[in-house]
Amino acid sequence: MARTIKLAVVAGDGIGPEVVAEGLKVLDVVLAGSDVTVERTEFELGAKRWHETGETLTEDDLAAISTHDAILLGAVGDPTVPSGVLERGLLLKLRFALDHYVNLRPSRLYPGVPTPLANPGDVDFVVVREGTEGPYTGNGGALRVGTPHEIATEVSVNTAFGVERVVRDAFARAQARPRKKLTLVHKHNVLVNAGHLWRRTVDAVAAEFPEIAVDYAHVDAATIYMVTDPARFDVIVTDNLFGDIITDLAAAITGGIGLAASGNVNPSGAFPSMFEPVHGSAPDIAGQSKADPTAAVLSVALLLEHLGLPEQATRISDAVTADIAARDGSPRTTVEIGDALAARVAG
Amino acid sequence: MARTIKLAVVAGDGIGPEVVAEGLKVLDVVLAGSDVTVERTEFELGAKRWHETGETLTEDDLAAISTHDAILLGAVGDPTVPSGVLERGLLLKLRFALDHYVNLRPSRLYPGVPTPLANPGDVDFVVVREGTEGPYTGNGGALRVGTPHEIATEVSVNTAFGVERVVRDAFARAQARPRKKLTLVHKHNVLVNAGHLWRRTVDAVAAEFPEIAVDYAHVDAATIYMVTDPARFDVIVTDNLFGDIITDLAAAITGGIGLAASGNVNPSGAFPSMFEPVHGSAPDIAGQSKADPTAAVLSVALLLEHLGLPEQATRISDAVTADIAARDGSPRTTVEIGDALAARVAG
Ligand SMILES: CC(C)[C@H](C(=O)O)[C@@H](O)C(=O)O
Ligand SMILES: CC(C)[C@H](C(=O)O)[C@@H](O)C(=O)O
Repeated sequence: MARTIKLAVVAGDGIGPEVVAEGLKVLDVVLAGSDVTVERTEFELGAKRWHETGETLTEDDLAAISTHDAILLGAVGDPTVPSGVLERGLLLKLRFALDHYVNLRPSRLYPGVPTPLANPGDVDFVVVREGTEGPYTGNGGALRVGTPHEIATEVSVNTAFGVERVVRDAFARAQARPRKKLTLVHKHNVLVNAGHLWRRTVDAVAAEFPEIAVDYAHVDAATIYMVTDPARFDVIVTDNLFGDIITDLAAAITGGIGLAASGNVNPSGAFPSMFEPVHGSAPDIAGQSKADPTAAVLSVALLLEHLGLPEQATRISDAVTADIAARDGSPRTTVEIGDALAARVAG
Repeated sequence: MARTIKLAVVAGDGIGPEVVAEGLKVLDVVLAGSDVTVERTEFELGAKRWHETGETLTEDDLAAISTHDAILLGAVGDPTVPSGVLERGLLLKLRFALDHYVNLRPSRLYPGVPTPLANPGDVDFVVVREGTEGPYTGNGGALRVGTPHEIATEVSVNTAFGVERVVRDAFARAQARPRKKLTLVHKHNVLVNAGHLWRRTVDAVAAEFPEIAVDYAHVDAATIYMVTDPARFDVIVTDNLFGDIITDLAAAITGGIGLAASGNVNPSGAFPSMFEPVHGSAPDIAGQSKADPTAAVLSVALLLEHLGLPEQATRISDAVTADIAARDGSPRTTVEIGDALAARVAG
């Protein structure tokens, strides 16, 4: 049955457009000759738009994006824009407005990938990071700014509603994986209010998933395990900020953020989900075709899987596995890597 | 000139008493034959006391502890006590009441120490973690607990007063080190209120320290550098929670939390400073003489340095360096390691 995917493309800043171009190239190749076609809309969002219009993401942009089946995002952030303006006004606004409460970040150490760890073991886990609460809500403020009496606050907001739905999603993912293990990462000995809500929720949902072995680690201890025994992790569920931190670390130990893909998922399907590399806009190497587009390409694979096209997703991840195994350390441009991946996908 | 150090000892829970005993053993040896004597007071605080009396740290305890020159703490926390009760009621209460605004956590990779990193490089940095603000203030709460409408908050509190004093301390430490570099670790693209206060403060204080090279890393990126290029760090200044997280990671890459010492310092001298291993009470190995007391012994070295006895401090850290270099992997008990260190200090 012929199918059309309406894809919103937000290439964004820095290396964003470069890596997204390769992601789209591979997407075209993997769907070529199939009955699935892609209808793309490009959205001019990011630093350029902000400089020209002062806009980050208007209600009209949001409404237009919302009519799509999925979003592919490159990266957001530029040194010429005050810190936080694009991150909060564009990237986080998309995650919050489109209710991306599951921020999915798989980490797998591909064979042959250089890792900073001497003995990484068999690393294959997924972090289910909450995406719409925690200290990311923008519920902070400041008083007497610039004076010796300034006080600045940041409020982490956690609700039973918000925690339960992401915890439930994480358990379901653990259930579908062979090792059937779930680790809650938090800091409940200090952040007792939020921590106890998370713990109680995990305990309650665990009763519905008797096959899942449930584990807990404080976020500080989790960073230790991440470098001493990352193979212990299967599914990690955690809050927005802790998830941000440990997934960068997870990316580092599995070969770097050049390979780490992510999905900002709205499992209900009420809004389009958004797929993006974990890396940022890397303005220092932008425009030089130096960025590794693999993370963007793997984000396309996550996108296809989310849209119910697992076979095509697997063809992409297999191509990545093969490409990585064949890497000999000689430098390749962004386009060369994209071409190589596309060629492998084409078979 | 003869001198008496009044030392408050809070051995605490789990492996706390075991490692503190070795720390005190080494302290006695390093001061033997000198004109410095130590007058110790042991404080029964922790799980046992709480079970017996319901008390964590009374005003009387606090007043008594405050009359001392310094505090040696083992570890706090026990699975039989609800999470947060001892951590917040005892450990954090001490840090806050005694205004330990500089939480000092040096990381050095000793020659010969096994590290999880394949190519660690020359690691020698110190994290200056703010100790009296951030999300550690207990300024959170919860509503409708246990219902589907529960909301739990945690508030990170940051003041110009609190940030400036710790930033100033960090710059002074950077100034005293050969590399003269300071890295602010925060997340100012998301936590904009707190983040901008930290940034502005670093910029302002930097003007008074023209020799210091100032750098910035988001906390997520900092965890990447910690495993890919930890040698880049010299002095890191950061908030209470980020400092908690990255110092566990720092300990992991420099041989584990069995070696990581810390000081909770009140630089003004208005209150006694407190020295403790970074590790926790490790109830799983408590009472088995399995814990490595090296972190507690190095905490004694930090204590001596803080009290103006740098020569004795160096004798201890030299003993640790030598002991570590001589380690061949055969297991030793807590007491055996303590004895070995004491013997080396005795010369
Ligand atoms: C750019 C920033 C706002 C973002 C985040 O903190 O979530 C990024 O670090 C990420 O992990 O996607
Ligand atoms: C036990 C806990 C409250 C404490 C902290 O979070 O500060 C510990 O992790 C530390 O780093 O000293």
